[in-house]
Amino acid sequence: MAERRTITGYSNPLVKFLRSLRDKKHRRREGKFLAEGLRLLTDARLAGMLPEMLVMAAGRDAHPLLTELEVAVAAAGGQIVEMDEDILAKVTGKDNPQAVAGVYAEFDTSLASVDRAAAPIWLVAQAMRDPGNLGTMLRTGDAVGAGGLILIDDCADPFSVEAVRASMGAIFTQRVVRASWDEFIRWLRMGEGHLVAASLREATDYRKAPYRAPCFLMVGNESQGLPEECEQACDLRVTIPMLGRADSLNAAVAGAVLAYEALAKLRG
Amino acid sequence: MAERRTITGYSNPLVKFLRSLRDKKHRRREGKFLAEGLRLLTDARLAGMLPEMLVMAAGRDAHPLLTELEVAVAAAGGQIVEMDEDILAKVTGKDNPQAVAGVYAEFDTSLASVDRAAAPIWLVAQAMRDPGNLGTMLRTGDAVGAGGLILIDDCADPFSVEAVRASMGAIFTQRVVRASWDEFIRWLRMGEGHLVAASLREATDYRKAPYRAPCFLMVGNESQGLPEECEQACDLRVTIPMLGRADSLNAAVAGAVLAYEALAKLRG
Repeated sequence: MAERRTITGYSNPLVKFLRSLRDKKHRRREGKFLAEGLRLLTDARLAGMLPEMLVMAAGRDAHPLLTELEVAVAAAGGQIVEMDEDILAKVTGKDNPQAVAGVYAEFDTSLASVDRAAAPIWLVAQAMRDPGNLGTMLRTGDAVGAGGLILIDDCADPFSVEAVRASMGAIFTQRVVRASWDEFIRWLRMGEGHLVAASLREATDYRKAPYRAPCFLMVGNESQGLPEECEQACDLRVTIPMLGRADSLNAAVAGAVLAYEALAKLRG
Repeated sequence: MAERRTITGYSNPLVKFLRSLRDKKHRRREGKFLAEGLRLLTDARLAGMLPEMLVMAAGRDAHPLLTELEVAVAAAGGQIVEMDEDILAKVTGKDNPQAVAGVYAEFDTSLASVDRAAAPIWLVAQAMRDPGNLGTMLRTGDAVGAGGLILIDDCADPFSVEAVRASMGAIFTQRVVRASWDEFIRWLRMGEGHLVAASLREATDYRKAPYRAPCFLMVGNESQGLPEECEQACDLRVTIPMLGRADSLNAAVAGAVLAYEALAKLRG
């Protein structure tokens, strides 16, 4: 077993570093993010991703999965750190204390390296502001066999603790791309790709619409929906029926209802 | 225009009272809950619900909708309170400062007063712990024309600020019922009703399943899903395909995918 560092004080610089990863600016500067909880870290390992640093509560009987993880991190040359449970709780947040956390390198992908033919469905979020919604989109993407999530314009950070948690591990299995609208539409039109907008305007009923692979399903901002410019550039605009008083669904819900419809149609 | 009270100090008992409504125990004791933001309060009014107390930031140019709301509250004999913006921000929470809030009486319904024939779809949540998920279920229920949301066993509080906010007004249009499993199943079997479980076990593909109105679509706890006892008591168990590594969807997403499938089938 590799040498372990043990941290006993709140003022240790490493504790400060870990806490700073809750902040987008620091994540971006360091190129690292935090994932918390044994289940998430195990999902990451199953997807082939190990943390650069594994942080564990001291003095606990280790879960067999944690022991496996520790062995794998050590073998890959990663750091292993123990700290008092209450210090770790300060790192992972009072609302959600976890006995283990991992520091990973951010790994978003450029559009140029996306193989669009690798999956029949890709999800696209435009200016989606809620990290929980982004994480839920990733989770849904995994479930429908999507290739990844393309984040257009000013979205929430997919590597925030909230998004990573809501993704339930899908952050490690889905491709994550960040691009401007102009970059995205230019890239899309260089090859095959059926761009479908979830629209709040007059549009085709989503159950009656034709979907073609690779199908790019685009959902807009939580309160504004998609800009008209984006909708007009789409090959297809679809609506989901709204029978009540509200005029829209939760953005991640709208994405999921569309994604499952496209999946059913594409599988025949 | 009715007489207004003006609150200028943080230590005013009314400020304390309003803040206490963020806490489930106090909400239950008072039988009141808090809704925040002009949009939500306007949705409530359109659904026929006025706050017993309207709380506004002082010294702002009033939005026409706020003026209408104030007139309606005063006419109905409700209280109108103004406070400094920073005090109101303390009441509504730093993360989501709002210029207006309303105190409403809780209005959940008993099973006995539910007219199941009033809607083709009813949503049922069992031990759902996340208030955001409950609110999203309410919002989806509104969108599919459901009659309401039935909360079974130990669910989050539908009148929490987070649930009310995520419902986007649907808390005011959907029936909300809280019951134990035993009460619910006894009530259900006294009349018509097709009980459908979202299952993670072997079950019918949700696209190939028959749905009959009134259709009760039941989704379970975020991490455990439904207890086997509940699934076995259902008329139908359906699964949503999971093509990736994860074994489940977000609970509110699963509810929405099912609800839209049932809606499409029931409408023919």
